[in-house]
Amino acid sequence: MAYQNSPYGGYGGPGGFSSGMAQAGLPPGADPQLWSWFSAVDTDRSGAISAIELERALINGDWTPFDLDTVKLLMGMFDVDRSGTIGFNEFCGLWKYIKDWQNVFRYFDRDRSGTIDRNELRDALSRFGYNLSPPLIKLIQVKYASNVASNYGPALGITFDRFVRACVVIKQLSGAFQNLDTDNDGWVQISYDQFMQTVLSLP
Amino acid sequence: MAYQNSPYGGYGGPGGFSSGMAQAGLPPGADPQLWSWFSAVDTDRSGAISAIELERALINGDWTPFDLDTVKLLMGMFDVDRSGTIGFNEFCGLWKYIKDWQNVFRYFDRDRSGTIDRNELRDALSRFGYNLSPPLIKLIQVKYASNVASNYGPALGITFDRFVRACVVIKQLSGAFQNLDTDNDGWVQISYDQFMQTVLSLP
Repeated sequence: MAYQNSPYGGYGGPGGFSSGMAQAGLPPGADPQLWSWFSAVDTDRSGAISAIELERALINGDWTPFDLDTVKLLMGMFDVDRSGTIGFNEFCGLWKYIKDWQNVFRYFDRDRSGTIDRNELRDALSRFGYNLSPPLIKLIQVKYASNVASNYGPALGITFDRFVRACVVIKQLSGAFQNLDTDNDGWVQISYDQFMQTVLSLP
Repeated sequence: MAYQNSPYGGYGGPGGFSSGMAQAGLPPGADPQLWSWFSAVDTDRSGAISAIELERALINGDWTPFDLDTVKLLMGMFDVDRSGTIGFNEFCGLWKYIKDWQNVFRYFDRDRSGTIDRNELRDALSRFGYNLSPPLIKLIQVKYASNVASNYGPALGITFDRFVRACVVIKQLSGAFQNLDTDNDGWVQISYDQFMQTVLSLP
């Protein structure tokens, strides 16, 4: 399969779909470019994209595949009819979402390294409105980095797929906390069950 | 590389190291079997196992690789000297940990499917002392399953690597909650910073 000619793939790109070209069966009114990407990802020509097909199609800028957890996050968001697959209309939403995140990632990856380092992460989260302490920023960097922490070796960097997941997790967690914090004093009372449910609902 | 002869690999096995044989340079007093596994995983013969080498060596019973997050969890637990790699002594601890989890996984995978389904998960967590509500068990199953939820298709099953991660997360979360719940009434007061730190410290 000719899966090398991605406009977003290649070293230094933020990541996204790797894809060839396929134009057969264009539905009336559909964007031909989007349809060609959709058809290229739908390798078994079933008319819908399975999680496995999506996992195979999504690559980071350094050619590593997306984490299963990020693929599941995307399936959960865009498989609107809960069929277990992504139809063409659902794909259009997914495509736009990834394109928007690519722009965000490119913007904050100031040194064009292909990963988000700690300063870039701090800037991104601050721009999103999260005022997090330096120890929290460090925790997020260590948790979502695509390599492990060591006393030497390359700095911890977050690839595109894990950056998206990190941002979604922080948004979801902060939102859940705010909903509980009805008097807005930065403290909440929470039961074991609520606590577990909040955390286990994260992607 | 002859990485097919794993005593724990193969369909239906719970997962673990895939490995060949290597006996050169056995340190005095070292278990020859363990040394041979260690040397086989240390493919660049550097004398220590990097995260990438560990990631390549660890496979589930269905031959899928371990998630990066599980590899990072194991590195974080067993890279005691924070060198960023696993030396032979650290490897002995890691090996035992995985062997113990293999036994746990085999015990609860009653139908020998190679994955943990919802009933098996409920039994395992209950045996570990966690009395979780059915909606919570369902959340854990959906979050850690290696496939996505759909209205049809195969049931959600959790592979070995994700089962270990799920159990570690539930243990760590429950422990953190209990530490905060000083009067033991099932409710805690928690600040935004504490809340975020607790969750972002999870593997």
